[in-house]
Amino acid sequence: MKPIIRINGLPQEHISVTDRALHYGDGLFETIAILDYVVIDQATHFTRLQRGAKRLGILLPPHFLAKIALDIEDILKELSEPKAVLKIIVSRGSGGRGYAPPVAAHIQRIVMLYAWPDYPLEYYQQGIDVHICQTYLASPSILAGIKHLNRLEHILARQEWQNPAIAEGLMCNKQGQIIEATMSNVFWIKNNILYTPDLHACGVKGIMRDRILTLAAEYQIEVEIGEFLLQVMLAADAAFVCNSVIGIWPIRCIGQHSYNMIAHKIITSLAKMINNKRLP
Amino acid sequence: MKPIIRINGLPQEHISVTDRALHYGDGLFETIAILDYVVIDQATHFTRLQRGAKRLGILLPPHFLAKIALDIEDILKELSEPKAVLKIIVSRGSGGRGYAPPVAAHIQRIVMLYAWPDYPLEYYQQGIDVHICQTYLASPSILAGIKHLNRLEHILARQEWQNPAIAEGLMCNKQGQIIEATMSNVFWIKNNILYTPDLHACGVKGIMRDRILTLAAEYQIEVEIGEFLLQVMLAADAAFVCNSVIGIWPIRCIGQHSYNMIAHKIITSLAKMINNKRLP
Repeated sequence: MKPIIRINGLPQEHISVTDRALHYGDGLFETIAILDYVVIDQATHFTRLQRGAKRLGILLPPHFLAKIALDIEDILKELSEPKAVLKIIVSRGSGGRGYAPPVAAHIQRIVMLYAWPDYPLEYYQQGIDVHICQTYLASPSILAGIKHLNRLEHILARQEWQNPAIAEGLMCNKQGQIIEATMSNVFWIKNNILYTPDLHACGVKGIMRDRILTLAAEYQIEVEIGEFLLQVMLAADAAFVCNSVIGIWPIRCIGQHSYNMIAHKIITSLAKMINNKRLP
Repeated sequence: MKPIIRINGLPQEHISVTDRALHYGDGLFETIAILDYVVIDQATHFTRLQRGAKRLGILLPPHFLAKIALDIEDILKELSEPKAVLKIIVSRGSGGRGYAPPVAAHIQRIVMLYAWPDYPLEYYQQGIDVHICQTYLASPSILAGIKHLNRLEHILARQEWQNPAIAEGLMCNKQGQIIEATMSNVFWIKNNILYTPDLHACGVKGIMRDRILTLAAEYQIEVEIGEFLLQVMLAADAAFVCNSVIGIWPIRCIGQHSYNMIAHKIITSLAKMINNKRLP
């Protein structure tokens, strides 16, 4: 099914071939869940977009986010299912040849409404099988944390497996420290402590990751954020991946390693709060 | 002046907003000089494009490069000046949401003809002033060497200076090892030995860099390719940047450091072979 599209507020399907997102990946994106016809965590996604724009030196024109909010309202009129996925792309806009952004850049806003991906119920109930990617993330990267349009490393990683039984791939840096998965952040639990990689040097800081860290603080779950070799994650009691669309998927196995506690109480209680409306 | 454009052989100015080059930077590019109405080193650029496509797992359909060659022939009919710049973009094409490339991807070819950039004659004769960028290149990177569409690091680096007297910016990795400049490769000379950074861990392997290395071998100039701290380049007798469009620009100063031998004999003899038709 084709997505429903608004480009700068208008229903269009094409953009200028001089757009810098096409030439350089010069822009940002957000992927937002719509559940029960409601846009989830829109304000938080907007805050990240704004932070990313600042990092890239993209000067958002006045009322830019308000206009995206109106685009979303408009596009939601065409929503026919209670669940869907919104993708927002912010591009620096058209330019000439060369990396220097044009002095008066016309920042582009693209809002796309996609059908909800029907992930199997087993992913939520029995957990997923995860591949260990050979493709490593370059680190340290000046682009760490933000959700920008330079995603070739993740595309290379995602091409490492074709087996449809594998739902995700883990990505490390060259030193073998676990960073994230191709489309999600990772957590694990050992002796009732919740662990997740520090993302100061590379990786994308997910909105769902933040939400889980906030929930953990509220429920007085002890958390450690740091640099960990993949082996540390493999030695955990239980593990899961998360993102704004999927919610939480427990991990059943990583490569040849199986976890015994897919239904670990911390995962179960977090999943109860997060997965509910996402389940097929 | 707007570029003249062919998209998949047709004169068009827009591409689908579902194109993966826009969403992820999922593609490659080449920038080629046209001098005296002749496309320079087309075969070499095509070879790099092919190598890059292989690295990214982009399966070029049969006769794809031959079709680009025809696009170039066609677009050159509109050439009104002896000098111009060709840009080729190869994109994986449209896809749905998610990093996995579509099984039957429709690889897109975009050929753009730009006016020749009129760089000042002084750049060639008196050398250029170079900024030292704070923006570092993430390294090691799985994308090292190829000319892909993920160029945010270079855009951030290029935004570090607005002073029009500065023509280029040097980029290092986090360890302070010199890699390249924002749009060019770098060389320097010390005691008649020609030095250039090894690009196995990051950076773009320029066609002009290769040509200079070949010329150096022919003319029995001793060459060292390796990992060097920026300080090593600053302590050189002379230095220059190069790319397929500009040819060779000697460096007059890097930050506060000036070189005494802008007209070093090795630079002068290389420039004689390369810059001739490029001069304003």
